[in-house]
Amino acid sequence: MTPATRSMTMTESLDFYFDFASPYGFLACRRVGDLASTVGRKVNWRPFLIGAVYKAHGGAPLAHPLKCDYVFKDVFRRAKIDGVERMQTPANFPASSVPPSRLAYWVEREAPEKMGAFVEAAYKAFWIDGRDTADPNAALEAAESLGFDRDKAMAGAKCQAVKDRLREVTETALERGVFGSPFVLIDGDPFWGGDRFADIEALYG
Amino acid sequence: MTPATRSMTMTESLDFYFDFASPYGFLACRRVGDLASTVGRKVNWRPFLIGAVYKAHGGAPLAHPLKCDYVFKDVFRRAKIDGVERMQTPANFPASSVPPSRLAYWVEREAPEKMGAFVEAAYKAFWIDGRDTADPNAALEAAESLGFDRDKAMAGAKCQAVKDRLREVTETALERGVFGSPFVLIDGDPFWGGDRFADIEALYG
Repeated sequence: MTPATRSMTMTESLDFYFDFASPYGFLACRRVGDLASTVGRKVNWRPFLIGAVYKAHGGAPLAHPLKCDYVFKDVFRRAKIDGVERMQTPANFPASSVPPSRLAYWVEREAPEKMGAFVEAAYKAFWIDGRDTADPNAALEAAESLGFDRDKAMAGAKCQAVKDRLREVTETALERGVFGSPFVLIDGDPFWGGDRFADIEALYG
Repeated sequence: MTPATRSMTMTESLDFYFDFASPYGFLACRRVGDLASTVGRKVNWRPFLIGAVYKAHGGAPLAHPLKCDYVFKDVFRRAKIDGVERMQTPANFPASSVPPSRLAYWVEREAPEKMGAFVEAAYKAFWIDGRDTADPNAALEAAESLGFDRDKAMAGAKCQAVKDRLREVTETALERGVFGSPFVLIDGDPFWGGDRFADIEALYG
């Protein structure tokens, strides 16, 4: 690899970190494709477990009595501004987002070009249809809707390589300073929140 | 007062809560006048002590190892996008913002129409000139630049009514769910951050 091609490889993508249990992640997921087109990058989909950040550093919005109330007012208001009319909180919220996150990394191994579509389908199952993030069936049905074999997907999400991948991405997120969802890293520059997409466009567009 | 005029009085303003030690408050202060014009309201300037919120509920960004680094990257980046080239962190940061906050409420009593100009002048002293928020001289010089008598201002900022006013605004902020700076309340609707001004315009413009 020449320095020129290495440089192209390094700069052609942006890392989109999110937790499937994050409502702001859902709203940003709908717009990150357009953002990537505007700045001429491809999206590296990086579902991770935000709970690991809260465990290490605190800052969980739901643990803050004032912020907790605010976040839900704000996010449903923003959904309406974004034209998302039927958004709802998932059953059993807040629950583990391990099942869809692992399945996403299985999709990444099986058919990486479908990872974005899987993320969007799973996110819709949770935040539009109100499915429980911790219910493996919700994520499996999202995979099925994209043509994946359900039994193969179910087995795949349990393989060690996929479990390790989610753990590794979560650890790397912490090391890279990711402390919220959604979070974009572009050439190492950190941007917290979908409300920073305009800044990314201003700086990288 | 008839119900009709009371209703007009209730809806003609927006409450702009901020701490003088908050860099996002400074950047939002530069834009809140335009926001108010767009939505046809006047600004109620509400300097308060964000430390009281952090004491009651936690969530101080500077206490979070990842968020602390991020906030300063983000705020100086945003300053450039906003066309603010010479922004700098105040000396002795983070320090008490009691002196400018009290002086602001003295200005409110003396010449309420000058309160916005005082807020802007004091904020510039801290975040453009790098003055210490805890140094009473910085706020006094901002008042002097607007034609106030320095000795009168110095004495005024120490009077009990002004001290009580700052305490009362801070307590009311907490009761109303204000947990960050800047924070806008408009007809009771809460908006955290200057990045929500576009939402306020979308909903109230």
